[in-house]
Amino acid sequence: MKLWQKEKASLKEVERFTIGRDQEMDMMLAPYDVLGSLAHITMLETINLLSKEDLRVLTAELKKIYKRIEKGDFKVEEGVEDIHSQVELELTRTLGDVGKKIHSGRSRNDQVLVDVKLYLRSEIEHIVMEVNNLFELLQSQSDKFKHHLLPGYTHLQLAMPSSFGLWFGAYAESLWDDVITLHAAYKVVNKNPLGSAAGYGSSFPLNRTMTTKLLGFESLNHNVVYAQMGRGKSERIVASAIANVAATLSKLSMDAVLFMNQNFGFISFPDELTTGSSIMPHKKNPDVFELVRARCNQIVALPNDIALSTANLPSGYHRDMQLLKEQLFPAISHLKDCIRMIHLMLSNIRVKENILDDDKYKFLFSVEEVNKLVLGGMPFRDAYKKVGLDIEANQYNPDTQVNHTHEGSIGNLQLSQVSAGMRETIATFGFDHYKAAFADLLKE
Amino acid sequence: MKLWQKEKASLKEVERFTIGRDQEMDMMLAPYDVLGSLAHITMLETINLLSKEDLRVLTAELKKIYKRIEKGDFKVEEGVEDIHSQVELELTRTLGDVGKKIHSGRSRNDQVLVDVKLYLRSEIEHIVMEVNNLFELLQSQSDKFKHHLLPGYTHLQLAMPSSFGLWFGAYAESLWDDVITLHAAYKVVNKNPLGSAAGYGSSFPLNRTMTTKLLGFESLNHNVVYAQMGRGKSERIVASAIANVAATLSKLSMDAVLFMNQNFGFISFPDELTTGSSIMPHKKNPDVFELVRARCNQIVALPNDIALSTANLPSGYHRDMQLLKEQLFPAISHLKDCIRMIHLMLSNIRVKENILDDDKYKFLFSVEEVNKLVLGGMPFRDAYKKVGLDIEANQYNPDTQVNHTHEGSIGNLQLSQVSAGMRETIATFGFDHYKAAFADLLKE
Amino acid sequence: MKLWQKEKASLKEVERFTIGRDQEMDMMLAPYDVLGSLAHITMLETINLLSKEDLRVLTAELKKIYKRIEKGDFKVEEGVEDIHSQVELELTRTLGDVGKKIHSGRSRNDQVLVDVKLYLRSEIEHIVMEVNNLFELLQSQSDKFKHHLLPGYTHLQLAMPSSFGLWFGAYAESLWDDVITLHAAYKVVNKNPLGSAAGYGSSFPLNRTMTTKLLGFESLNHNVVYAQMGRGKSERIVASAIANVAATLSKLSMDAVLFMNQNFGFISFPDELTTGSSIMPHKKNPDVFELVRARCNQIVALPNDIALSTANLPSGYHRDMQLLKEQLFPAISHLKDCIRMIHLMLSNIRVKENILDDDKYKFLFSVEEVNKLVLGGMPFRDAYKKVGLDIEANQYNPDTQVNHTHEGSIGNLQLSQVSAGMRETIATFGFDHYKAAFADLLKE
Amino acid sequence: MKLWQKEKASLKEVERFTIGRDQEMDMMLAPYDVLGSLAHITMLETINLLSKEDLRVLTAELKKIYKRIEKGDFKVEEGVEDIHSQVELELTRTLGDVGKKIHSGRSRNDQVLVDVKLYLRSEIEHIVMEVNNLFELLQSQSDKFKHHLLPGYTHLQLAMPSSFGLWFGAYAESLWDDVITLHAAYKVVNKNPLGSAAGYGSSFPLNRTMTTKLLGFESLNHNVVYAQMGRGKSERIVASAIANVAATLSKLSMDAVLFMNQNFGFISFPDELTTGSSIMPHKKNPDVFELVRARCNQIVALPNDIALSTANLPSGYHRDMQLLKEQLFPAISHLKDCIRMIHLMLSNIRVKENILDDDKYKFLFSVEEVNKLVLGGMPFRDAYKKVGLDIEANQYNPDTQVNHTHEGSIGNLQLSQVSAGMRETIATFGFDHYKAAFADLLKE
Repeated sequence: MKLWQKEKASLKEVERFTIGRDQEMDMMLAPYDVLGSLAHITMLETINLLSKEDLRVLTAELKKIYKRIEKGDFKVEEGVEDIHSQVELELTRTLGDVGKKIHSGRSRNDQVLVDVKLYLRSEIEHIVMEVNNLFELLQSQSDKFKHHLLPGYTHLQLAMPSSFGLWFGAYAESLWDDVITLHAAYKVVNKNPLGSAAGYGSSFPLNRTMTTKLLGFESLNHNVVYAQMGRGKSERIVASAIANVAATLSKLSMDAVLFMNQNFGFISFPDELTTGSSIMPHKKNPDVFELVRARCNQIVALPNDIALSTANLPSGYHRDMQLLKEQLFPAISHLKDCIRMIHLMLSNIRVKENILDDDKYKFLFSVEEVNKLVLGGMPFRDAYKKVGLDIEANQYNPDTQVNHTHEGSIGNLQLSQVSAGMRETIATFGFDHYKAAFADLLKE
Repeated sequence: MKLWQKEKASLKEVERFTIGRDQEMDMMLAPYDVLGSLAHITMLETINLLSKEDLRVLTAELKKIYKRIEKGDFKVEEGVEDIHSQVELELTRTLGDVGKKIHSGRSRNDQVLVDVKLYLRSEIEHIVMEVNNLFELLQSQSDKFKHHLLPGYTHLQLAMPSSFGLWFGAYAESLWDDVITLHAAYKVVNKNPLGSAAGYGSSFPLNRTMTTKLLGFESLNHNVVYAQMGRGKSERIVASAIANVAATLSKLSMDAVLFMNQNFGFISFPDELTTGSSIMPHKKNPDVFELVRARCNQIVALPNDIALSTANLPSGYHRDMQLLKEQLFPAISHLKDCIRMIHLMLSNIRVKENILDDDKYKFLFSVEEVNKLVLGGMPFRDAYKKVGLDIEANQYNPDTQVNHTHEGSIGNLQLSQVSAGMRETIATFGFDHYKAAFADLLKE
Repeated sequence: MKLWQKEKASLKEVERFTIGRDQEMDMMLAPYDVLGSLAHITMLETINLLSKEDLRVLTAELKKIYKRIEKGDFKVEEGVEDIHSQVELELTRTLGDVGKKIHSGRSRNDQVLVDVKLYLRSEIEHIVMEVNNLFELLQSQSDKFKHHLLPGYTHLQLAMPSSFGLWFGAYAESLWDDVITLHAAYKVVNKNPLGSAAGYGSSFPLNRTMTTKLLGFESLNHNVVYAQMGRGKSERIVASAIANVAATLSKLSMDAVLFMNQNFGFISFPDELTTGSSIMPHKKNPDVFELVRARCNQIVALPNDIALSTANLPSGYHRDMQLLKEQLFPAISHLKDCIRMIHLMLSNIRVKENILDDDKYKFLFSVEEVNKLVLGGMPFRDAYKKVGLDIEANQYNPDTQVNHTHEGSIGNLQLSQVSAGMRETIATFGFDHYKAAFADLLKE
Repeated sequence: MKLWQKEKASLKEVERFTIGRDQEMDMMLAPYDVLGSLAHITMLETINLLSKEDLRVLTAELKKIYKRIEKGDFKVEEGVEDIHSQVELELTRTLGDVGKKIHSGRSRNDQVLVDVKLYLRSEIEHIVMEVNNLFELLQSQSDKFKHHLLPGYTHLQLAMPSSFGLWFGAYAESLWDDVITLHAAYKVVNKNPLGSAAGYGSSFPLNRTMTTKLLGFESLNHNVVYAQMGRGKSERIVASAIANVAATLSKLSMDAVLFMNQNFGFISFPDELTTGSSIMPHKKNPDVFELVRARCNQIVALPNDIALSTANLPSGYHRDMQLLKEQLFPAISHLKDCIRMIHLMLSNIRVKENILDDDKYKFLFSVEEVNKLVLGGMPFRDAYKKVGLDIEANQYNPDTQVNHTHEGSIGNLQLSQVSAGMRETIATFGFDHYKAAFADLLKE
C-alpha cells in the first residue's frame, strides 16, 4: 500500500492518536504496576518460570524503581508507549534479557487490569479519608451552630423552622450513605484479575491464589472471562460511587450559593474566600462553591459517560477501554480537590444570628401552632383550619419558641449516633489488610 | 384574576397535569402505605396522640384495606389525587373523623418517603431473587457446556481458545458483583425516614426508634433534613445498582446476537423463540435479545435521567420528585421481565459442537505454542518471534488440545467458589428481618 | 426442544415482552401509516405491480380507514402486533387477497421509517406552533411589564438593575433560537426513506422520486443503507431539538420558583394556580412550575437515553429501535403540555410593583454610578475605586433612575426585531408544502 | 477570621482551584479576544468613550498581539488569571493607563461570551471543512467499490445483498445530515452578545449594531438577558451538533471493527495501520477504529455532560460556565483528529473480492427470488411461502445476479445528487461573510 507509506507524518499522527494522554494517565498507575510485577514474579518463581536468582535481581531492581516513583524521579520517556513498557525497558537496560521475563504468563490486558484495580482501591481509601475529614467538620459545625435557627423551605416556599445544626448535620449524614456505596465499589474492585492474561487464561500453571494474597486482595475475579469484563465495569461502578459524594457536595454548594444571596443572607465568608467583580465594586461572589458545584456535576455525569463508551460492546477486550482512564482518573483528583475546598470554606463560614426574628418568617411557626392545638385536644383538621383562618384574618401571633425533641430533630441531633454509624462503616473496608500486603512486598 | 377563572377547562388541565401518572404509580406503593400507617398509629398511641380505641379500629380497618390491595381489589378513584388520600378517604368513609387522625404528626412528605423506601426495599429483594435464579442457570449451563470450546476475541480479533463454560460462568460471576452493589443500595434504603414530617421534624414527641423497629428498618435516617434529602437520592442509588444488572444483561444479549449471526453461528434457539421476517423467508431474528439489550440500555441511562432531574436543586422537598416514580418504578418491572426472558432463552439455548475444528480458528492456539516453547526453556520474546515466523511461513500446525488448569480457566472454572460467594453476599441482606416485622404488623 | 414448548405461559410472556407498548405507541403513527400506503400503492400502479382496479379499491378503503382514525374510531386489536398489521388485516377482511398487495416492494422496516418521519414532521410543526404561541405571550408580557424593574443577579449575587421586560423578552428570544434547531431537525426528518425496503433496496423498479413528491418530502434519503440508518438517528436529532425548548422552559420555571419564594417575592399567581400544604396553612406552592421543570429535565435527558440505546450498534436494522418510540413519543406530548402550562401560568402572573425601592437593592446601581463618573471624564479604574470606597464608607447614595438605551437593554427591548426574526425562521419550514401533498393524497 | 488567614497554602489552593485549566483553554480564545477588543474599541470611539488617538495606539498594539498569537509567540503568564487579563496587562505595559480603557462599557461576561462565540463559529467552519474532506473520500470510495457486494444484515442476521458502494455512500450521506445540524448550531452561534455587559446591559450608549457588523455576525442576541443565557446554551447546541458527526464516525468504526473480524473478513488494512499483540503473534488489531469509536462516544456524551452542569440554574451568569470550556474545547479538537484518522484509514482500505461467492451467503438472494416470482404474476404472500418451502426442502438455488435500479440502490447510487446536496448545504453557511469582516478588522 504505497499511498500512505509515504505519509510518514500520517504514521506519526497515528502514533500520537493511539497513545493519547496515556503517558500522563499511566503515571498514576506507576507504583501499582511495580507492585503487581513484584507479586507476579514472586509467583512465577514458585512455578519454575523464573529461577531464584532471576527473582532476586528483578525484585531488587523493581524496588529501586518503586522508590524512584515515590520520589517523583520516574517518567514515561518520549517514544515509550506506556508505563508497562517503561518499567520493562528500565529492567532490561539494567539487567539485560532477564528484564523481559517479568512478562511471562501475563498479558498487557491483565497487567493493566490489576494496575487499575490496585489504583482504584487506594484512591477509594484516599477519598474515604477526605470524606471523613469533611464529615467530622460538618458534625462539629452542626454541634456548634445547633441553636442557630434558619427557615426551612419546601417547594422553595417558607415551611417550618430549621437550624444550622440540622443543615450541617444533614450533609454529614449524607456522606455516611455515600461511603456505604463506596464500600460496595471497594468490594468489587478488591478482587484479583491477575492471571486472566488476555481474558482467556493461560496454559501456564499460574497460582492466582498466591498473587491474590500477595497483593492483599480480598478474593479473585475467578472466571478469567469475567476478570476481563471488569475493565469498564470497575470504572463505571467506582464512578457511580464517587458520583454520590459529588452529588452531596453539589447540593451543599447550591445551598451555600443561595444562602449567600442577599435575599437570604444567612451565611457569609471572609473576603479572601470570595471573589469580586470587574465592574461591580460591591460583589462578593461565591466562586468556590460554584466551581465545586460544576466540577461535581461533571463527576455526576461520569457514570453515564463511561456507560456510553462501553454500551453494546460484546465481551472481550476492546481498545476503547484505554480512554476510560482519561475520564475517571482526573475526576478522582477533582473530587478530592472539591472535598478539601468545601472543608476550607466551611471551616471559615459565618452564620447570621437571629435570622428568624425577621417578621417575614413568622409563618414558619404555623405547624407548631396547629400541633399545640392538637396536643390540647383539637382534631388535626380543625386545628389546621383555625390557624389558616387566623393567618387570613391577621390574628396569627405565633410563639417562636422551637421545642422539637424527637430523634434527629432540632433539639436532638443525634450526632453521636451518626458518628458511630460512619465509624462502623469505615471499619468494614479493612484498608489495613492491603497495606500490610504492600508492606510485605516492599520490605527489604 | 378573572381571565383564567373562567377557564374551567384550563383548571382541569392543571389538575390532569399535576396528577400525571401518579394514580398508576401509586398503586405500587399501596401495600407499603398501609404498613407505614400501621406503624405510625401504633406509635401515636404510645405518645397519647391516639386513644387505644382509635388505634384498635384504625388498625382493623387498615388491615382490611391491606387484604383488598393484596387481592387486587383496591384502586385510586377518579378525582382522588393519590394513594395516601385514597386510604384516608376510605377510613373516614367507614370510621368518620377518626380516619383523619392517622395523619397526625406526619406530613405527606415523610409518608411518601417511607412508602418509597419500603417499596424499594422489597423490590431489591425481588430483583435479588430473580438475579439468583438466573445466576443458578448460568452456573449450571457453565458446568454443562464446560467442554464446548469457542473462539475468544480481543479487539474483536481472534485471540485464544475460550469455552462456553467460561462464557456462561463469566455472566454468573458478573451478577455476583452486581448483587454487591445492590446490597449497598439496600443498606441506604433500609433506614427509616418516618417522623421527618415535611423535612424539618415535628413538635410532637414522636418515637422514631419505635417506628424503625416496627417497620423492620435497620436504622433511621437520623437527621430530618437528611431524611428528606433521601428523596431523589434513594432513587438514584437504587437506579445505579439495578443499572449494573442491566449492563450485565445487555452485554450478554450483545454476545448472543453476535453468536447467532451466521458468520459466527455458535448458538441457536428453537424457532418459537426467534422471529421471522415479513420479506425474507430464511430469517431467525434474535428479537428477544435485542429488546432485552434495548430495555437494559434504557435502565443504564436511568441514573443519569434522575441526576438531571435533581441536579442543582437546593435542599428541601420539590415537587419534581414526584416524576421520579414514573422513571424508576416501570424500570424495576422491566428489569425483572428482562431477567426472566434471558432465563427462558438460555434454558433453551443450543450450542454448536466442535466449533474450533474450523481451520480459520487455528491461530487461536498460537499463545499455547509460544508457552510450550517457553516451558521448554526458550525465552518468551524468542518463542513469540519463532511462532510469528512459523505463521508467516505457513509452517504453523498447532496442537489444539487446551490444557488450562489455573484458577478460573477453562479447565478449572471454580463454579463452587463463585456460588459460595454469591450465597454469602445474599445472606448479608437479611431480608427475613423486615419480613418478620411486616408479619408482626399484620398479624390478627 | 420439548422443555419450553410445554411452557405455553412462557410463550405468551415472550409475545407480551416483544410487543411491549407498541399497540399504544403505534396509534400515533396510524394516520401516517395510511398516508404512506396511499403514496406507495399509487406508485406501485405506475410500475405495473398493481392494476388500476386494485389501486382504486385499495385507495377507497384506505381513505375510509383514515377517516375512522381521525374520528378516533380505529384501534390495534388484541393479538395484532402493530398498526401495520392492523391496517393490512382490515383491508383483507374487506377486499380479500388484494389487501395483501399493499406490501409489495416494501418491508416493515421502510414502512415504519416513513411513518415515523411523517409523524415527527407533523409533530415538529405542532411544537413550533405551540412555541410560537408562548413566544407571542412572552413578547406581549415583555412589553406590558417593560417598566417593572427587578434585581439582576450574577453568581446569584445582586448585580445590576434588570426588568420584567428583559426577563420575559429573554425567554421569547430563547425560543427563537430553539426554533432554529427545530428547523434543522425538520430538514433531516423531511427526506423520504420509503423504497429502502429492509435497508438494502429492492429488485423492483420502484419510483422513489414519485413517493417523495406524493408525501410532500423535500427530498429523499437517497442511499438505502443510509435511509435505514435514519432510524435512531432521526429520533436522536429530533430529541436534541425539543430538548432545547425543554431547557428553555426548565430555566424559566426555575426562575419562577425562585421569584415566588418569599425571600424574593417578585411574582405571584392566583390561588387556583398554586397548591397548598397538608400541614402548613400559609403555603402557596409552585407545583406547576416544579412539574414543568422536572418534565423538561426528563426531555433534556432524552437525547442521551436514545444515544445509549443506539451506541455501538453496527449498521443495519436492530429491533432495539422499537423501544425508541416509547421514549420519544410521550416526550413530545409532554413538551406540548408543558408549553401550554407555562402559557397558562404566565397569562395569569402578577408582578410586584416597585421592587427596587427596597433598600437592600441600592447596590444594583453602583455600575451606573461608575459609568456616570466615566462619562464625566474619570478613568474607569479610578471611578470603580471611588464608588467602592464610597460604599465602604457608607457614602453611597445612588440615583436609581435607569437610563439604558442601547439595543436590547431595558429602555430598548427590540421586541419587533425579535418577532420579525421568529417569523422569518418559521417561514423557512414551509409546512404548507407537505400539507398540500397530504390533501392531494386524501382528496376524493 | 484568623484560622485560615494563616493558611497561605490554602489560599494558593483556592487560586489554583478557581483558575483550573483556564490558562490552557483560554489560549484557544486568544485570537478572538483580540478581534473582539478591536471591534469594541472601534465602536467606543464613535460614542466618544475613546479618543481617536487612543483608538489608534490601541488598535496598533492589539494587531501586534494578534500577530504574536498567530506565530505562537503569546501566552498567559504564571499568576495571570486568564487571556483577557493577559491582553490588558500587555497593553498597559506598553501604553500605560490607555490600555485599561478597552474595558469601558464591557464586562468580563460579555467579553468571554463574544470570544466563545467567535471561537465556536470558526471551529464549526473547520469541522465542516474536515467533514467535507471525508465526505468526498467516502463518495469516491463508494464509486470505486460500487461493484463489490457484501452481505446486508438486519438484526445482525443475513438479510439481503448490499455493496461497498452502498456502505461508503451511506456514511457520506450521513455526514450531509450532520452538516445540516451543524448549520443550525452555526446560526445560533452567529449572533453578537457583545454589549450585554454582565447580562443586564449598560448605561453607556453602546452601538451594538456596529460591533455586530464589525465582527461579521449575522445578527445580534438582542435581549441582553438572553445574550447571557447563551452561555451554556451555545455550548450545548454546538455539542449536540458535533455529537451527530461523532455518532456517524462511531457507527462507521463499529462496522469496520466487525468487518475486520475474521468471521466476516470483508476488509483489511496495511500492517502499519493495525496493531499487534504482546502475546499473540497473528493479531492485526483495529486500534484506530476502536479509539475513534471511544473518542466519538465521549463526544456523544458531551451534550448531556453540559446539560447536567447547567440544569436547574436560574438565569444570570454563574461561574459554573467556566468549566464548560474544558468539556467542549478538547472535544472539538478530538473530533477533528477522529475525522482525519478515519480519512487516513479509509484511504488505505482493502476490500475483499467476491465475498458473496461463499455458500453461506446464498440466502441473501431469497427476496430477489420472491420478487422475481411476483413480477411473474404470483401474489407476494404465495411467492414468499414458495421460496420458504424451497429453502426448507433444500431446493433453493438462487440466481446471484443483483439487479437493483431504483434511486439509492446498489445499481443507482445517486452520488451526484448527494454531492450536490452537500454542496448546497455548505454554501448556506456563508463563512466568507465573517472572514471578510475579520480581514477588515485586521487590515493595516
